[in-house]
Order: sequence, then C-alpha cells, then structure tokens
Amino acid sequence: MTAIGTSVARADGPLKVTGQVQYTVDTQLPGMLHAKVLRSPYPHARVLAVDATAAAARPGVVVLTAADLTNLDHAFGVALRDQPIVAIDRVRFVGDPVAAVAADTPEAAEAALEFIDVEYEPLETVMDPEAAAADDAPVLHPVERPRAPMFVGWPAERFRGSLNVCSGYHVEQGDLDAGFASADHVFEDTYRVPPIHHGNLEPHAAVASWDHRGHLNVISSTQSPSIVRLQLAEIFGLTENQVRVVVPYVGGAYGSKVYAKIEPLVAAIARKAGRPVRLVLTREEVFATAARHACTVHIRTGVRNDGTIVAREVRAFYDTGAYADTGPRASKKGGYLAGGPYRIEHQSLTSYCVYTNKAPAVAYRGFGVPQVVWAYESQMDDIAARLAIDPLELRRRNLIRDGDTFVTGDVLRNPGLDEALEAVAEAGDWGSPVPEARPGFAIGRGVACAIKSTSTPSNSAASVRLNADGSVHLLTSSVEIGQGSTTALAQVIAETLSIPVSRVTVSLPDTDVTPFDQSTISSRTTFSVGRAATDAAAKIRQQLMSLAASQLEAAVTDLDVDEGSVFVRGSRDRSLTFAEIIRRHFGSPAGSLFGDSVFQTRGGLDPLTGKGKASATWFYSAAAAEVEVDLETGKARVLRIATSADVGKAINPAQCHLQNEGSMLTALGSALFEEVVYDAGQPTNSSFLDYGMPSLEDHPLEFHSILVEHPSEDGPFGARGVGESVISPVAPAIGNAVAAALGGARVRELPISPERVLAAVDQQPEARA
Amino acid sequence: MTAIGTSVARADGPLKVTGQVQYTVDTQLPGMLHAKVLRSPYPHARVLAVDATAAAARPGVVVLTAADLTNLDHAFGVALRDQPIVAIDRVRFVGDPVAAVAADTPEAAEAALEFIDVEYEPLETVMDPEAAAADDAPVLHPVERPRAPMFVGWPAERFRGSLNVCSGYHVEQGDLDAGFASADHVFEDTYRVPPIHHGNLEPHAAVASWDHRGHLNVISSTQSPSIVRLQLAEIFGLTENQVRVVVPYVGGAYGSKVYAKIEPLVAAIARKAGRPVRLVLTREEVFATAARHACTVHIRTGVRNDGTIVAREVRAFYDTGAYADTGPRASKKGGYLAGGPYRIEHQSLTSYCVYTNKAPAVAYRGFGVPQVVWAYESQMDDIAARLAIDPLELRRRNLIRDGDTFVTGDVLRNPGLDEALEAVAEAGDWGSPVPEARPGFAIGRGVACAIKSTSTPSNSAASVRLNADGSVHLLTSSVEIGQGSTTALAQVIAETLSIPVSRVTVSLPDTDVTPFDQSTISSRTTFSVGRAATDAAAKIRQQLMSLAASQLEAAVTDLDVDEGSVFVRGSRDRSLTFAEIIRRHFGSPAGSLFGDSVFQTRGGLDPLTGKGKASATWFYSAAAAEVEVDLETGKARVLRIATSADVGKAINPAQCHLQNEGSMLTALGSALFEEVVYDAGQPTNSSFLDYGMPSLEDHPLEFHSILVEHPSEDGPFGARGVGESVISPVAPAIGNAVAAALGGARVRELPISPERVLAAVDQQPEARA
Repeated sequence: MTAIGTSVARADGPLKVTGQVQYTVDTQLPGMLHAKVLRSPYPHARVLAVDATAAAARPGVVVLTAADLTNLDHAFGVALRDQPIVAIDRVRFVGDPVAAVAADTPEAAEAALEFIDVEYEPLETVMDPEAAAADDAPVLHPVERPRAPMFVGWPAERFRGSLNVCSGYHVEQGDLDAGFASADHVFEDTYRVPPIHHGNLEPHAAVASWDHRGHLNVISSTQSPSIVRLQLAEIFGLTENQVRVVVPYVGGAYGSKVYAKIEPLVAAIARKAGRPVRLVLTREEVFATAARHACTVHIRTGVRNDGTIVAREVRAFYDTGAYADTGPRASKKGGYLAGGPYRIEHQSLTSYCVYTNKAPAVAYRGFGVPQVVWAYESQMDDIAARLAIDPLELRRRNLIRDGDTFVTGDVLRNPGLDEALEAVAEAGDWGSPVPEARPGFAIGRGVACAIKSTSTPSNSAASVRLNADGSVHLLTSSVEIGQGSTTALAQVIAETLSIPVSRVTVSLPDTDVTPFDQSTISSRTTFSVGRAATDAAAKIRQQLMSLAASQLEAAVTDLDVDEGSVFVRGSRDRSLTFAEIIRRHFGSPAGSLFGDSVFQTRGGLDPLTGKGKASATWFYSAAAAEVEVDLETGKARVLRIATSADVGKAINPAQCHLQNEGSMLTALGSALFEEVVYDAGQPTNSSFLDYGMPSLEDHPLEFHSILVEHPSEDGPFGARGVGESVISPVAPAIGNAVAAALGGARVRELPISPERVLAAVDQQPEARA
Repeated sequence: MTAIGTSVARADGPLKVTGQVQYTVDTQLPGMLHAKVLRSPYPHARVLAVDATAAAARPGVVVLTAADLTNLDHAFGVALRDQPIVAIDRVRFVGDPVAAVAADTPEAAEAALEFIDVEYEPLETVMDPEAAAADDAPVLHPVERPRAPMFVGWPAERFRGSLNVCSGYHVEQGDLDAGFASADHVFEDTYRVPPIHHGNLEPHAAVASWDHRGHLNVISSTQSPSIVRLQLAEIFGLTENQVRVVVPYVGGAYGSKVYAKIEPLVAAIARKAGRPVRLVLTREEVFATAARHACTVHIRTGVRNDGTIVAREVRAFYDTGAYADTGPRASKKGGYLAGGPYRIEHQSLTSYCVYTNKAPAVAYRGFGVPQVVWAYESQMDDIAARLAIDPLELRRRNLIRDGDTFVTGDVLRNPGLDEALEAVAEAGDWGSPVPEARPGFAIGRGVACAIKSTSTPSNSAASVRLNADGSVHLLTSSVEIGQGSTTALAQVIAETLSIPVSRVTVSLPDTDVTPFDQSTISSRTTFSVGRAATDAAAKIRQQLMSLAASQLEAAVTDLDVDEGSVFVRGSRDRSLTFAEIIRRHFGSPAGSLFGDSVFQTRGGLDPLTGKGKASATWFYSAAAAEVEVDLETGKARVLRIATSADVGKAINPAQCHLQNEGSMLTALGSALFEEVVYDAGQPTNSSFLDYGMPSLEDHPLEFHSILVEHPSEDGPFGARGVGESVISPVAPAIGNAVAAALGGARVRELPISPERVLAAVDQQPEARA
C-alpha cells in the first residue's frame, strides 16, 4: 500500500495556513442583510407579549417574532421537535431567542433590538438534572409529548419522574441483587461533570436566501448538511430538492454544529426579508447555543476480593438544558456504555435525559460517554486501592476480550483495548517509581481506559467520478471540520485505484450535488464515508479492468492495476493507462466513469429491552497520566501523558496522532479547568477570557500518542475511526493520578479545581503527604 | 405522458424576470483584481518588442506579456493549437491580444495599458478567404503545422492553396462530369455571406483564481465547461481534477462561447498576480473575439427539364479569421451539407477553411450550414424560375425521403422535411395570390428548406440522485444559456419517474461535481444530455421497482410506477411512495439512490473519403416568407413568415416555439441587416449602435412556428433538438421572396441591403415591376 498508512500532507493545509480558505463567516451575497437575535434575560419565564412595532418601523429593519411563524410547524429537533425558532409563549434559559432582526449592518440590527418590547412573567427555575427529574420540579415543557418511544429498554411501568425527563434508557443483564450478594465489597459513589463549552473557533454562522422559485439556499457552518436540509424542508414545507445546504470549510465544531442550530431562524427571517440574511453568533451567543451535557452519575459496584467485578448499577442524569436536541441519543449511549469495557455478569444501567433551565446541551466529542467513564474509571482506582491491587492489574483482570458479548448483545470483535492499555502503561513508565516531587508538591500516576460506540444505524453515500485523464472526484456530504476528512478520503480512493493522492479531489458538501451523509459525527467519517468511497472507487476499478480486458484482449482475471494503469499480470508491457482506456472506450479524451456506493450500517436497540446491535464498530482507548499537585494551592499540573487508541488501521498516521493530541488537550481542559458557571440561572463566564480553556502552557511537557491497529471488520482497510477515542480516558487518568498523589483523596466532580483538591484533602486528612 | 409535451414554465424564469439570477459578470471574489487587454491596432504586423516596464511599475498593477508564458505551451485551440494567449511575435487582426493588465479597478487597469509600449512592423493583409487561399497570399501562420489530418476526404495530392488554408473537406459521389453531361440546364453562381456578430447580451466574462494547492478555479460564461477544463489543464500542465470550471447562468452565447476564449488569458494573469482576476469584455472586444464565418460559395448545379437535380458541385471558402478555432469543423459540416436535403446522384462538395486578418470566426448557431443553405436554396428558385416550375414543387420532386442515403453514407430515418415544407407553405398561403402591394412597393413570397447534422461523435454523462423524499437532482455539465435546458431536462426525468417537474432540480455546471458533457452546442442538449438523463432516471426507476418488489412481495414484472409511487398493477392499494421505499430500504428517511448514464454517439468521417457516419440525428426545417420591397429605396420588410422544424418530439412545446422564433429573428437579421464591416483591415461598426441587429420593429407582423414531430431513433421520447433548425432556411426564404417581388432580380450576397436590392434591379431592369 502506498497511499494508506502514509502521512500525506493535508489537502486543505496550504489554503488554511495562507488564510486563503473561506469559511461561512466570510460569505458575502449581494443585498445581504445581517441578523441579530433578541434573547431572554430570564432563565425561565412566560412571554406575555412581544411588541416589535417600534423596531419594525426603523428604516431597513425586518423583525421576526413568533407571530410570523404561525403557518410553520416551527419547533425543530431531531429527537423531539421541542425547540421553537423564536420563543412562542415561554423562554427556558438565559439566551433563548425571543425575536430576531435583520438590517443592512450588524450594528443597525443590534440597535433595532432595543426597540423590541417583551413582557415576561418570571417562572421558577430548576438547574440540576436530578432535581428537575423529581415529581415536584418546575416543568419546562408542560405540553405532554409522546415520550414513550424514547424510553429505550424502559418498561413503561418503571417510568417515574417529572415531565422534564424527556427520555430514558435502561438495560440490564444477570441478577443485580444476586450479583451484589456475591460481592465481597460494594462501592457506591456519585460523580459529577458540569456543562462545558466546545470552544469551536468559528462561531455558528449561516447565510440563508430564498429564490423566486421558492427554493431555500443555506450556507452554513454545520456538521450535518443532509439532515439540516431534511429539517429545513420539514419546517418550511418544501421537498428536499427545494432546499440547498452548502457547507464551506468549517472552523471547528466538536459536536456544537450537529443538526439544525441557527439555520431555521436565519431561513425564517430571510424569508420574511426577501433578501439574503447572514447570522454570525457572538462568543456569548455560542455559549447560549451549545454545551456538553452536565451529568450526575450514581455508580454502585460489587467486587470480589480477587478484583473481579461482579455487579454494577449505574443511574446517570444527563442535563440536556432547555431543549432535547440530541440529549436522548447521547444519554442512551452513555447509558449502555456506563458499565465500562469490562466483563460484568450482573448489570443494571439507567440513564435519564432531563430538561433544566440551562443552555441546550448538544453533541460534544465523546457524545455522552466521557461523563460515565469519569465515574467508572475513577471508582476503579478506589476499588484498586481498597483491594490493594495495582490499578492496571485490576483492569487487566476485568477487561473485555475478543468475542465477548457486550451488555447490549453486541459481540466485540478484535478489540485493541488490552494493547492500548499496556501501551500507555509502558509509555508512562507504569510500575516504575514515581519521581520525587519538589517540596510542597506531590506526584501521582493514573491510568484509565474506555470503550465507545458509533452512531448506528447510519448511512453514507459516495459518488466517485473518473475524469478522462484518470484523475478522480469524490462527491460526499461529509464535512471538513478540520479533522482532515478530505485528505483521508482521498487516500482510500487513491489506494483503491493505485493513483497518486494528488489526483483525487474531494468535494465539500452541497446537498444539490453531493449525496446523503448522515452527519460528520461519532468518529464515523473514515469508517463509513471512507468505506462508501472505497466501494465506489472499486466499482470504477472494476469497470476499468473490464474495458481494458477487451482492449488488451485478456481475461479480467489476468489483469491488475498499478500506478494508474491496468496491466496483464506477468507481462507489464501489455498495459494501458486509465487515460488510454477512456480514450479507447469513448473515442476521445473525454467522458466520465462513475462509481456510486451507499454504506449502510444496520442496528439499533429494542425499545423494550434496550438490547440489539448498538454499534457498527467500537472505539477502544486508554490514557496514562503523571500529575504534579501543589499541596498548598491545590493546583494540579499534568507532567506527562500517554494516550492510545485502537484506530483499526491508521489511514494517515500523522492525522491520527493529531486527533489524539487534540482529544487529549480538550479532555485535559475538562479535567482541570472547564465549567460553564451559572449563578441563579445566569451564565457568568460566557467568554474565552472568563472561561478557562487550556492554553499551550497547560500542554503536558511530555506527550505520547500511540496508535493500536486491530482491524475492524467493515472499515476501509480495517480503519475504525479516531476522532473521539482519547477524549474519555484522559480525565479519569488525571483524576486517578491526582488521587494517587494525594494518597487516595479523590475529587469526584469535574473540573479538578484547586478548591476541590484542597477540599478532598481536607476530607481525608490522612492522605496529605 | 404528463411532463413531456407540456409547456412547463421555465425553472429559471422567476429568477431571471426578477433580476435575481447571478451571471459570471456579477462575480465578486475577495481580493479580486480586474483585467484589461492591450490589443493590436494593426490587422497584421510583426511584434518587434513589448516593453511593459512602465506599466508594471504602477502601484498594484500586474502585467502579462508573452515573456511570462515561455514555460507554457500556451497556444490553444480545439482543432489546431494556433491561438496564443497573448501575441508571441505577430498580431493577426485588429484586436489580437498583445498584453494584459490586472489592477484593483477596471479603470486602473485600463489606465495602465497606456504605459505598455509595443513596437510593430506592419505586414501585408489579406481579408478575403478565397484570395487568402491563393498561393501568393500573405501568410498568417508561416510555421508549417500538421494540417493533413484536417483534410477530411481530401486526397493529399489534390491539396492546393497557401498555408492559410488550415483545413479542407471533400466528399463526392457518382460521376460529376457524367452528371453534368446528362443535365438539360447548368446553373453556376457564387453566393457570399459576411462575418456577423452573435449579439450575446452578456459579454465574454471569466474569473480565475489559483489556490495554494496549485489548483485553478475558473468561473466562466462558457458553453463548454468540460472542454475548457481540458484545455486549461493542457495549457497549465495540470490534471483535470486540479482545474475547476464553474458556469453560472449564461446570458446568451449562440456559439460565441464554445471552447476556450478568454479563460486561458484570465488564468494566466491570475497565476502571475496570485489573486483572483476578473475579465469582462467590452462590446467592442466581443466583436474582436467571435464572429460567424464569412463564406464564399461557388455552386454549380445540373438539372433536367423535369426539375430533377442530377449534378451539383460546390466549393465553399470559409473565412475563419486569424485563428482556426472551430473553423475546420464548421467548414467540414458546411462541406458535406452543401448539396442540400436533396437526392442528387452526382455530387462533389468541397470546403476550405482559410485564415484571414479578421477577428476569429467561431461557432455560431447553424455552425457552417446557413452559409451553404443561402447558396443552394437561392439557386433553387433561380432554377425553378428558369424551368417554370413552382419552387415548392421543385423541392418536392428532389427532397430526400425516409431511408435515403446521404452523400456521407448516413441513412436518413423518418425525416420530417416534407411535412415541414408543406406546413410552412400552407401557413404562408403558398399558391394563393400574393396581396396587392402599395404603390411603389412590391410583394413576393419565397420558401426554403434545410438539413443540419449534430456534432458526432459526442459524449454526455448524467448523474441522477434520488433524495429520501422522492425528489431528484440531475448533475450535468450542460449549460443553461437561456435555451431552457434546465427545464427540459427536468421534464424528461419527471416523466421517467412519474413525479412532478418541481421535484427535479437540475444542476448548473461545476466540473468538480458535474460529469462530462461535450459542450452545449449543436442543438444536442435535449437529444444527448436528455437521453443520458432519461437513461439514468430509468436506472433509479428500476431500483425503486426492485426494492418495492421485495417490500410489496410482488414480482417486478407486476409493478408499475405512477405519481411518485410503485404499485402492483391491477391492485392500486398495494403501493408504496418512493419515500416509503427509501425509508424501508435504509431504515430511516435518509439516503440516496443513484443512476448514472453516459450517452455516447458514435460516428465520424473517414479522412480519405469524407464518408462514414456524419451525425447521430438530423434536423429538418423549412421557412416561407412574404416580403414587401420598397422599390424606391430598395428596403425589404418581412410581412409574414412561417417556420417549421422537425423536433422529433416537443418536450416543451412553448420553448420549442421560442427557439423557432429566436432563430427566425436572428436569421432575419443576417438576411437583411447584419455585417461586421472592415475597412482596410479595421472593423468599423463594432458596437450595437453601429451594427444593425433586428429590433422588435423588424419582427414580422405575422409569425407562425410549426413543430413537426417525426421521432428520432435515439433521442429521449423521440426528441431531436431544435435550437438551430430554423436558422438556415429563413435567409434564403426571404431572399427568394425578394427575388419573387422583383421579378427574379436576385441579391446573392448577404445582407440583402437596400443598396444591393437596387443594384440587383439595375442589373435586371426587366424585373422592375
């Protein structure tokens, strides 16, 4: 293989480092207006009246309120259509859109917002997901919605909680009571993670225009062109060919741009204005549009003296904020993965997705999984400490292995988890003495590992076209969000056709011309789109061989392909370049050959049992961290970290390593610094200045990225995907290292702030070094 | 059929009548520069020196001269690569590009042009094609080029003429001498047409930019995205996937924008500037970029007393101007069609394509054919007059019929020529008394008919994609030049899939995503692209039926498709909508189905005999005109005209009629008004003010458009194409009417100007009424 496994330079690299690339925020259309959004100052309130008369009277100003939307079914959402384009009669978080204005300049639009009068009646708020699930909690969406189908694996009679519980998931195996009865030790703890911010540098941005055929054109920084098209078609009563979604290069997303976000609003106001309208969110508004799910995880684990985990019960409350968005899906995934990558005979795993008066929680790298990994991998080290078993050894004894059946019923094939775990342990000098700390500091080491699934079922189509000169185009709706998809997809095609990577051009999404793709999410692009692209390219390879067979008067079975030519095996001088084959076939250096393919992953979980086929492939990862803690201030600093992911096959090793490094630094931020803080329902740190993302100074002095390659069954060339793998184990590895440094004093709520470190030490004075 | 044969409103109509459509000239790119071209003031001169130092020293100015192009094989041209991007050592017509400048504004670029010093040494010029073919003519391209392969049907030993003859075509059948010996009468005349202007409202425009991967992006108002990509790849040494040609709606072309015109220059200067560059030609420059071939046609015809044409010899000199462009192809087509749509036993047809010091002649509606039709259909009425046979009857006696073999060897199937001719005769009241003219005026009637072929071989690919809701996209590189292709192509797909036309979206060309199409030329789009689209849609229909068969548990053979559903024949309640079929197949309302097809027409003429298969389909047309001539001024005015074309099958009757009307008015202009005038090599009327295109006031008071439908063998639903059919017979019908009004006094050179009418009358005084 020449293209696969090679760290080909990124196709988009030169465009990006020279600033030549155009993002959605750079879009300019003739006659384009600029939108601004009037947002709720209350975390929860009834909207009694919206008077936009004065604003609408200003020259050049177009105002959108709920009154404009009565002829649309304008609540949207892929799991539950619960999110209005602008508030109808109620606002549910600080930042909830109430009205929007379009004007010639952003400043004019901003100025007009002040002329909209809104009368509110404040309502009681609820900010904690577990409290929100209680029967007496204030209810955010009082209209009874059809919720039962969301309650996967959850017998109706077992349901309880308020209307704020918008979905639930439950799965079990074995006999939980018997399991705990057979345990020598039972550990019961509660772990918490706060809402955090994605930190996508390019804010949410979209430009919408309607043409005089009544077609809607949207340019958007979205991860989901195909689904956004579907959502907009539904909202505005159009067929899919009447909605065009174009996605330029995206300047970071990390889940924050999955499915419709601002697009329905921009489309609605453009429709009223009769002109193109652009909306680019401010950073404060990005904070009000997307967050990672806060989560409270109660975990109870029964263990034998030899370290065998025999029973585990998890109840996780996912805080989806004011609207469901993908919360039902993320909490389902976190639910069935809450037992971890371990053989546990008796399990009962339950997750709830609960509305609170926070900004909507949406997809975020890891999609519901890091929350439960934080819980089970932290608890694992408490168990190890109590049983006096080395934490690495404790994991070894319980790890899932090839052919094991997961709690969902999936059979796990060729997992690279043990290899990943051993690799980070070795890179992190696990078992060797911890370096001596400076006075007033303590150093500890921790490991953690994780398993994650991918969105299943899903569907990716690829259309490959061969030009007359043997160069190739791939049409795909997968989004280049900075992860390098355009490069990796070019590589799988180049390998399949034995041509240089430079001869392959990969499209950006344009739903009028690029075929369906589920979304650029769930580490699925290389696996699913890559597989579709490989299959499509193979069809072209097959056609070229068939044509060459008759042109060379040879049997197809005697032919092979190399360096852009078809040749007779064992007789290299009998060969034809692709260009020659085309020329002979069409009679001129002209014409196209086509290969299309759809890669459909099958699966899904039974609504009654929560079981079935959860995932088309699985991601395994591990991390080992060495952390220094300042015993006076409580500040933790990561000295060394090793991460490892089973990528199946590294299509582009350099990019896989970069994904690991990005995941590591993101997870380090969530471990030590990051939290969207609310005070009485008001967010208080919605800016990069106030919100503490890690900087390069926080980067560990020593970083190892290790790629494990246990080929998957269905991925192209065995690839699995790598975008999210390392997100999950990093925080608990750091948490375990901190606990180790502190002699077992454990912080159970992220981030591991200096205050929490000091508090943990205070609660366990014997831990102080 | 519901979609076919229906005058569906144009898909692009609302965009165009509201001004919402964007043309290439509307393109704005960030950092874009504007180009202007320094052009030769001499019709023929050696370029001794180009000094651009002063211009290049001006702030923000980038200059392109031949010195910048030494590393490119920068002469281009689809037939002969004889046209430099900017002059290398010689200029060949007034307007030949010598250098180009890019600057922040068009004004700054224009100003900089004056700082370029060019030293010329004027050379002898030649403006007449027949004179240019003479051995002692001044030679425009003194470098010996490989010309022989261009001389189709032309045994090398018969070639004569200067190096200015850049190609020739010859075909013969029977025994010419014997044929003429058997004739009772021989007619020998010379007919001439001048260069004329296309009158495309949108001038040539292109925007080029290079990205930092070294990929070239071009937005152009071209009729040939696929071929322009190929040409640019050749010039700049790129692979096809590294050149992207995007074509927005085109504001008129008529052949003037076929193949590369200004694109190589714009790409070259953008490459040097390192920024996007836009060039929009002025009207004067459009005149210097494209014209219809002037032509001198010598025609000798032998006829028996009963009107049977027994022998015809034609020698036509096509004036291709300074560069070959498509002249070799147009003159070949005019060559083999020079005998007309008649059974003539003995024929010898020869055409020459000759360089002169005029602006390049390029494709123009009719592509070399109107020139010879003007000759043979004018002469036909002289023959009729001499033999005292009604001109309509004379044609009837000689018309080709179903199954006849054409001079090229093609067998003509199901020609609608006789029906077309009879139809215009009837609509024009042929045979009834001509109305009495006002005093000082004379009224006459004339008919004419014609045959035209289509570019063969050619290749059109179509990619059809079905969305999850059953709506459809067609990806094609055919260009919407105002002819309504996006509407007609939507209709053939809608018909094939039994869905509303509004559910079909047709792409505009973007070579990165739309597949190969030969060019939007030669009345071939409905025929070739329409056929490819129909075949591609049929593949989707087949897939839907296969999927439905298993979903409905029925045999495919028992199924049918109607109104976007598949149903069991005879049991309409067992049916599934396309959306339901997709949902069941993919498990969600998501995913794409694909149908791709390539329609390749086979053919071509043998280089030695000029015979073979000339055309994949044939266009038949006729016109009848009634003209009033002012006997004092000589001014002719068309009172009534009827035109008829065999369209095979009218996909969209209203649009077919509009094509006929446009062709009629264009041809009327060429008949009565239009001529690009040169004075000592200098064009003197290169503006719409000076150049006399017909206005609405010149539109005949009565106009009939008649569509004949003799289905073609290969076109979609039997369609043949209609874009050029009526161009050819109109001018001779008008000429014949003028001659009839004048008692036989004939103008043999277009346009039929008042001066020429008076001169014709003077030469034949007995003709005066």
